[in-house]
Amino acid sequence: MTDKNSEKEERHKKKMQKQKQSIDATIASAVKEQGVVILLTGDGKGKTSSAFGMVLRALGYGYRVGVVQFIKGEQLSGEELFLKNELPEVDFYQMGTGFTWDTQDRSGDIAAAEKTWAVVEPMLKDERYHLVVLDEITYMLSFKYLDEDRIINAIKARPTNQSVVLTGRGGGSAIRDIADTVSEVKDIKHAYHSGIKARKGVDF
Amino acid sequence: MTDKNSEKEERHKKKMQKQKQSIDATIASAVKEQGVVILLTGDGKGKTSSAFGMVLRALGYGYRVGVVQFIKGEQLSGEELFLKNELPEVDFYQMGTGFTWDTQDRSGDIAAAEKTWAVVEPMLKDERYHLVVLDEITYMLSFKYLDEDRIINAIKARPTNQSVVLTGRGGGSAIRDIADTVSEVKDIKHAYHSGIKARKGVDF
Repeated sequence: MTDKNSEKEERHKKKMQKQKQSIDATIASAVKEQGVVILLTGDGKGKTSSAFGMVLRALGYGYRVGVVQFIKGEQLSGEELFLKNELPEVDFYQMGTGFTWDTQDRSGDIAAAEKTWAVVEPMLKDERYHLVVLDEITYMLSFKYLDEDRIINAIKARPTNQSVVLTGRGGGSAIRDIADTVSEVKDIKHAYHSGIKARKGVDF
Repeated sequence: MTDKNSEKEERHKKKMQKQKQSIDATIASAVKEQGVVILLTGDGKGKTSSAFGMVLRALGYGYRVGVVQFIKGEQLSGEELFLKNELPEVDFYQMGTGFTWDTQDRSGDIAAAEKTWAVVEPMLKDERYHLVVLDEITYMLSFKYLDEDRIINAIKARPTNQSVVLTGRGGGSAIRDIADTVSEVKDIKHAYHSGIKARKGVDF
């Protein structure tokens, strides 16, 4: 090894030691053991798929999971097919009315939202659920299909060990406030705009 | 129904019709049928879990999937346990050296990166793979562990029907340029900073 190379190795080692110290310090300062509320928002691709990735994560440890999807088209997408066919241990419910711009029926949508919320409420009271995913719930708030206070209070009153993942664009500040973690998925570039069709097994 | 209510219904319907027209137009203008390159980057939570959600999506249709993880700790996280134990049909490989700030060993990391890339290359030439996930590959570029041109060219030369998901912070402009879709996951808020410990079945 040349001197230049061994210098590079040494610099790398020092830099990594410093980074490790900083990471270790952050880990050491986080001591509270409790479930979290995670909000995945923004206009970019990856919110629902991220929620499903966390479902896999919880299942890897044998934890009980509930997945409730608000909105969604009438056709099952790949991850929904997989849940239905391969993961019967997951409690899975879909509002199933399709997108609100397809139904164009406000009172019908509200009735369906209420029916779906009636599935969510018992999950948020049941400590056997380690993880509850409420996919696209933000639209229920922005369209005022469901009462914000009722949702916020139910999430806040959930068992200490339960985590909740909320997805969808927007959703308002109250939901951001109760979230422990908020990730905004920003659309920097989308294949759509280059004329590429949504891809089966990737986009749906 | 009161007049005010029916007005509201009507306004909602018109708004949704307009939104549907705009969405339908975008869908109609996207006609190219081909695999895509998706880059999930940024400092927020949800990049790897999103990639795993897309794995589920592809599996829902019975497509063949390859998952290769660069970096990663020596302990398997929930989604990795699930892949190993429940989804033997997925071709799964981990570099397995742990984080570069843990190893603090530049030449060892480079050797491991090269060994891992040797697993990726045949996947990127094999049209039987519908989806290939290269988790945390961006660090291999930012640390200059792997040659950028070699990676870019291999991804560009892949079979037309194959999609590739790349995850990790940063990664440079060349990788952004070849990506059809780029989502930046921004860390708006993280439970860590409120002293809440990383959660098993949610964070790992």
